[in-house]
Formats: sequence, structure tokens, C-alpha cells
Amino acid sequence: MNGNSLSLKIEHVNEILKKYLPGNDDCGKICEAMSYSVLNGGKRLRAIMLLECFRMFSNDEKLESDIAEPFVAAIEFIHAYSLVHDDLPAMDNDVLRRGKPTTHVAFGHAMGLLAGDALLNYAFECIGKISENTEIMENSYSTRVLKAFRVLSVKAGYSGMIGGQVLDTTQEYTPGTYNFFIDPSIQLEFNDEEIERLRYTLRIYELKTSCLFEAALMCGAILGGAGEKDIEELEKAGRALGLAFQIQDDILDMTSDSATLGKSVNIDEKNGKKTVARMLGLDKSEELVKMYTAMAINSLSAVGKDDKFLLKLFESLIFRKL
Amino acid sequence: MNGNSLSLKIEHVNEILKKYLPGNDDCGKICEAMSYSVLNGGKRLRAIMLLECFRMFSNDEKLESDIAEPFVAAIEFIHAYSLVHDDLPAMDNDVLRRGKPTTHVAFGHAMGLLAGDALLNYAFECIGKISENTEIMENSYSTRVLKAFRVLSVKAGYSGMIGGQVLDTTQEYTPGTYNFFIDPSIQLEFNDEEIERLRYTLRIYELKTSCLFEAALMCGAILGGAGEKDIEELEKAGRALGLAFQIQDDILDMTSDSATLGKSVNIDEKNGKKTVARMLGLDKSEELVKMYTAMAINSLSAVGKDDKFLLKLFESLIFRKL
Repeated sequence: MNGNSLSLKIEHVNEILKKYLPGNDDCGKICEAMSYSVLNGGKRLRAIMLLECFRMFSNDEKLESDIAEPFVAAIEFIHAYSLVHDDLPAMDNDVLRRGKPTTHVAFGHAMGLLAGDALLNYAFECIGKISENTEIMENSYSTRVLKAFRVLSVKAGYSGMIGGQVLDTTQEYTPGTYNFFIDPSIQLEFNDEEIERLRYTLRIYELKTSCLFEAALMCGAILGGAGEKDIEELEKAGRALGLAFQIQDDILDMTSDSATLGKSVNIDEKNGKKTVARMLGLDKSEELVKMYTAMAINSLSAVGKDDKFLLKLFESLIFRKL
Repeated sequence: MNGNSLSLKIEHVNEILKKYLPGNDDCGKICEAMSYSVLNGGKRLRAIMLLECFRMFSNDEKLESDIAEPFVAAIEFIHAYSLVHDDLPAMDNDVLRRGKPTTHVAFGHAMGLLAGDALLNYAFECIGKISENTEIMENSYSTRVLKAFRVLSVKAGYSGMIGGQVLDTTQEYTPGTYNFFIDPSIQLEFNDEEIERLRYTLRIYELKTSCLFEAALMCGAILGGAGEKDIEELEKAGRALGLAFQIQDDILDMTSDSATLGKSVNIDEKNGKKTVARMLGLDKSEELVKMYTAMAINSLSAVGKDDKFLLKLFESLIFRKL
């Protein structure tokens, strides 16, 4: 895809994030730790997906600024907090993130914990702040706001992203629980236990990664005024895209080095976890990435809004090197 | 106060919490850890204050169930998460809470972290769920919901409760920053540095404890339909009450034992922090508790709704032994 147009969009999102991040007050270093965790050269995929989806359904720039931008901030703050907590000693115990020391390494263990808490909480503060906009409140947009808020909170929660962290941490699975569909065209020579473990790991990816992708696409659409059917298709698109993205992440973890990725490689293996790419090998993993990307593009096309940028973004994730 | 009537109210809140806590799903032990952290014999002060305040302004039982109860659940889940994270090794490293092992001791360090995250997130899920109630959405109640949501999220956040944890953790203060009013009738023989430290510690109490008390009273009032002036008075009441409550906590920490309190005593001292009661001594601390309680009752009375239960609850906090 046109890297220039993508980098402009990333820059736009970063401006929104800077606008929303809290300024310093009397509460010690918390604002500094929050900014440090957010402004770290992230790809802003979730934010861009949210904005693009909003624009599929609405070209009202004022509405975008009033109700979509707070959600852009919120979803990136939630993503940032999840990384901060995931890096903590109690979890992955990682020291490097996008080429910089992780938050708890830079600010101390307690501040890592609190900055994560503060970012999660602040995501919702940004949404709540919309209630101070009387113009929005007097129109019927408050219903859209509450609906999108509901989706974001559920997808980020115990049955969504946090649930994924839990499964990833405990690595306890009951055979037969995770009936995750695996396309028969991906010919696997696995025994039953290996299949179960693959399903369990895909379920973790779905929860840890797809859920926020789904939330991004769905919230953008809801805030833009989409109908139920389109919202459902976008949920499917987000699910497939998240799986493709995460398996591509595994592949990069196997084929790249720490300097290129800006983060520790093989961290999962060090922590005794086996990624999907390590289970399947590179060739079959690449097949799976293509399959899930095709599924995502299929669902996106079903919305029929012909969003070329989003389409190209979906495609580009297969070829990414970072 | 009539202990029987208080215990009935606690029981009522516990029923609401049980109704709102998530059932088990495929996400491992997270639901169990969440329930364990919430259903632990808490006093439910915040929930009771919220419900009583709602009832000061509305006697609509259906509305109470539709919009006040989700906030009752939310505020108790936020309170519970803050305790779970506060007990973690990175913070107070406490092993005992209300006579039971703390969450991370019972479920492991990672699950303590994730159960806290999940509870904070789930608090907002409960509020978001109101958007599925079309009857509420079609009326103008969605504005009240968004307004109360805004208050709760800010009071729980980086400039509220979490900010208090930050100050408590870092113990870094700049002289002259915390111009906390201290009544001259409390005659202090303190030097300037001691006064600064006292102000800093009171500011921590205000953020860590008062903020959620303020949120409880304000959210109840907003959801019940109160006007701006009453909401402001209730904010003041919550602030003073939180200070009284926290200093009383200090006093109990000095005069009681672990078996009676069901938690570790002197944990602050072990962690090198000096409580207000230890700075002032028992007599002056008791004076301060009485002063703040009187201030709280004053503000509550200014609302002029003659809520006898809430008044007695405020008074009872001075004489509590737990």
C-alpha cells in the first residue's frame, strides 16, 4: 500500500492521542508514564480501522471529532495498557518494547502497574467526557455513544482481550472445549492432542488480538450510523484479520531479529509457550495468514462501501515486516 | 445506628453484586478470581451511599433497578479491583484481606493482576450494558447515565483514586504543592516539614478514599435526577467523609489487632509510610475524625432531603470498630 498515505494517517492518530493524553497535574509521574506508554511509535492499526470505518458511514467532520476521536483515543489507550501489563514481571517479564525499555523498567514496577490501570480507566474517561458536549447529548447521538462504549468494554474485558491473557497465562485447557474451526485445506498431520493445542492457541489469538480489531471496526461503524448487518460483517472481518495478524507476528518472531522488531524475540518460547507458527511451520502458517486475510477481505467487501484504504490495509498486513 | 437495617442493606447489595458478577465461561479461572475478590464480606459503604442518594431524588423502583443497580455493581467492582492491585507484591505486598488470603495469594500473581484488570473493565461493561435497555435509551435517561459514568470514571482515574495510589507509592512531594486546609482548632506543634508531610498524606487520603465516596454520592444523585447544586454539596460531603473514614482506619490500625480487623495491621509502617494518626497521635486524630464527620453531615444536610439513614451512616463511621 502507499506508505505515505499510511504514515499520514498514523501521524493524524498521534495528534489525536497527544490531544487526549492528560497534562501533568499534582499526581506525581503518572501522566509521564502514561504518555511514555502510549507515544511509542505504534502502528495505530486499531485507531485507523476505527476512523476508516466511521468514514464509511459518515462524512460529518464535526461528528468525527466529537464522538469518533474520543474512541480513537480510548482504543489506543486500552491497547497500550494491555501491553504495559503484559510486559510486567508477573506476566511476560519483558524489558524491551518497540526499541525502548518497557514502562515498568523505565518507571519502576509499581508505576508500571498503576500506569496500566490509569490508561484503562482513562480510556473510559475519554468516552465519558462526551457527556459534557451538550450538542451531542441533545441529539440522539448519545445512544450511538453508549452502544459503541458497550462493544468496546465487552471486547476488552474478561470474555474478550483480558480473557485471552488469562488463557495465555494459565495454559490450562480441557479437551473438547475449543471447537475452533480449522480449514481442512490446511493439511495437518497432527494427533488429537496437537489439534487441541492448536485450537486452544487460536482461541487465545482470537481473544487477545481479534477482539480489539473487532471493537475498532464495530465502534467506527456504530458511531458513523451503520445498521446491524454491516456491524456483524465487520465483526467477522475483525476476527479473521486479528488471526492473520497474530500468526504473521509469530512468523516474524521466527524469521526476524530483536533489532528489526524493536522487541525481544522468542519471548513466548522462553516462557514455555508454543506459537501457532512454531506448531505449523512457516509454510503452513503463511497459508493460514492468507486464508484469514481472504476471509477478512470477504467480510469487508460484504459491507459494500468500497473502502479502498481499508482493503489495502488488510492486504498489507500479510506482507508487513514489523 | 440500627445494625439490623444496615445488614439488610449490605445483603441487598450483595444480591445485586451476585446478579452482576459474570458466570463461568471458557476463560479459565478469571470469573472465579473476580467473584473471590468481590464477595469477601465488604461493608459495601459506596454501594449503599449510591443507592441511598438515588432514593433521595427518585422513588422509581424500576429506574433504580435499570440504571442505579449497574452503578452499584460498577462502584463495588472498582473498589474491589483497587484492593486487589494494592495488595500485589509491586504495591503493599499484603497477604491477608478481610481474614482471607489476598487474590494473588489465592490465585497466583498473574491472576491477581488480571482479575484486577478484569474487574475495572467489567465495572464499565455493567454500565455499558444499560445501552441494551431500549426503554431507557428511548427516554432521556441516557444523558443521566453518561453523566454519572463520566463522574465515576474521573473519580476512579489518574486524577482521582489511582492518583492517590501513585502519591502513596512514590512518596515524592514538592513543598508548597499541597495546600490542604487544616483547621486551626486542631492545634499542631509541627515544624514546616511535618506540616507539609501531613498535607501530602491528607491529599493521598482525599484521592484514595474520598474520590470513590464522592462518586458514590454524586452518581446516585445524578441518576435520581438531582440538580447541580445538590450534586456539588454531595461531592463536598463525600470528600469530608472519606477523610474521616481514612483517619478512623489509621486509628483502628493503631489500636486493634489483625484478628479483629481481618487484615494485616501496621502494614503502612512496615512499608515505611506514616499515617495521619501516627503523625498526630490518637487524641488529635479523633478530633480530626469528628471535625470531618461534622463537615460531611453539614453538606448532606444542605441538600435538605432529610435522609435519616444516610445521616446515621455518616455518624456511625466515627464509632466503627472495623
